[in-house]
Amino acid sequence: MHETALRVRFDEVDSMGVVHHPRYLIYFEVARTDFMRSLGLAYVDLMRSGTHLAVTEVGVRHLRPGRYDDPLVVLTRCTAVSGTRVELRYEVRRGAELLAEGFTRLASISPEGRPVRMPREVRDRFESVVVE
Amino acid sequence: MHETALRVRFDEVDSMGVVHHPRYLIYFEVARTDFMRSLGLAYVDLMRSGTHLAVTEVGVRHLRPGRYDDPLVVLTRCTAVSGTRVELRYEVRRGAELLAEGFTRLASISPEGRPVRMPREVRDRFESVVVE
Amino acid sequence: MHETALRVRFDEVDSMGVVHHPRYLIYFEVARTDFMRSLGLAYVDLMRSGTHLAVTEVGVRHLRPGRYDDPLVVLTRCTAVSGTRVELRYEVRRGAELLAEGFTRLASISPEGRPVRMPREVRDRFESVVVE
Amino acid sequence: MHETALRVRFDEVDSMGVVHHPRYLIYFEVARTDFMRSLGLAYVDLMRSGTHLAVTEVGVRHLRPGRYDDPLVVLTRCTAVSGTRVELRYEVRRGAELLAEGFTRLASISPEGRPVRMPREVRDRFESVVVE
Repeated sequence: MHETALRVRFDEVDSMGVVHHPRYLIYFEVARTDFMRSLGLAYVDLMRSGTHLAVTEVGVRHLRPGRYDDPLVVLTRCTAVSGTRVELRYEVRRGAELLAEGFTRLASISPEGRPVRMPREVRDRFESVVVE
Repeated sequence: MHETALRVRFDEVDSMGVVHHPRYLIYFEVARTDFMRSLGLAYVDLMRSGTHLAVTEVGVRHLRPGRYDDPLVVLTRCTAVSGTRVELRYEVRRGAELLAEGFTRLASISPEGRPVRMPREVRDRFESVVVE
Repeated sequence: MHETALRVRFDEVDSMGVVHHPRYLIYFEVARTDFMRSLGLAYVDLMRSGTHLAVTEVGVRHLRPGRYDDPLVVLTRCTAVSGTRVELRYEVRRGAELLAEGFTRLASISPEGRPVRMPREVRDRFESVVVE
Repeated sequence: MHETALRVRFDEVDSMGVVHHPRYLIYFEVARTDFMRSLGLAYVDLMRSGTHLAVTEVGVRHLRPGRYDDPLVVLTRCTAVSGTRVELRYEVRRGAELLAEGFTRLASISPEGRPVRMPREVRDRFESVVVE
């Protein structure tokens, strides 16, 4: 599982003093970019090549609140891949505590937003690390 | 179903020119506040009364992209309520088009973050409109 | 002066319970779009015409805190315009109270980011309402 | 000058493909927290001690656009300090290029939002590094 370290920013905390729940999707996105870079798939290059991975579905379960300045780790793994789709799963941890877990499903699309097959190389990279 | 009108702000659109997916959770939250206000449940009053509704689970399916300056409508309904939990479902529409749909599950907690029973009045209001 | 009504969203409030200061720049942007639309200058059309107004300088003074769910009004006026630049000033009010005031300076640029003259029609519209 | 490294996140870029201007205030805030931590002034501790530094004024000049995934460095320095106020200045750089520069003025306030004198230790720390 790929690990991405983050520290909770002040603007990410709501008036209850806890990480505002939509921010976990941002953490997932930061972790996803980092995970893909570790596979040699720079998101910037991908976009320049004319393929974009659009988020088609997300789910998050919130178990414990994150707080301002907490050092967090996001664990990312690829749990499914096909010609046009990929699913990633995430765990957000503070030390041994699990704060949230979730998934994103992504579909490869053209710059005009039409579904297209993922470049073979991109699919291969995801397949090389798929688990479960 | 309760309707909340929104217009897509410039900062809500990503570099692909579409509404950035975590924003739909913000739209849900704005719609939830508005829905609750229509039930006579001002979120601010609720918080002052010592009860907070914490988001414990979310899910969103993205069907079509939203664009900058689009006038959107979020339709909100309550689909389940118990002594400590409530589930709301949302549809984000641009005219007749469904852009996204999803849900949030919320749990009533004390200011210290412990689960507590929802004030009777709050539960009653949700029960008066629960559907499905 | 042009008026734009806003209501403070939950995600705009920080852990001190007040509107997080960078949000005022978002309020300015929402008000600017609204102000320009009132002049017949839809931002979307402007961008499609190949001109973008890039923010080159901002300043904000914060006088009183905004709170969650506050109904706010942003007053916008154009205070200077030239062939390539425009300056707007804003006041954010809650009833009679002034919460913040500030300005943005914008420069017209091409899609590639090079300075270009503003379309004559755009300049004319700003000039028709310039004050001070 | 204190250095804080950041990488531009996908959600920080607007539909023109450049860092959305209000984000620089977030970068300043992240850098400020980091700068203060380097002085032994953990923001979290400060808030727990009953002192909050509220932003009273900001200014930013934007010189070049930041792009998605850019590695940035924020340089922070303290340029003035008094019994109740402190001024910090920032430069956001991408390698040798200056993208933006600006300042924030902060005032020490009580949890109720009233101006209070900064704890002596806090003022001393800022004074030990003040420049210009």
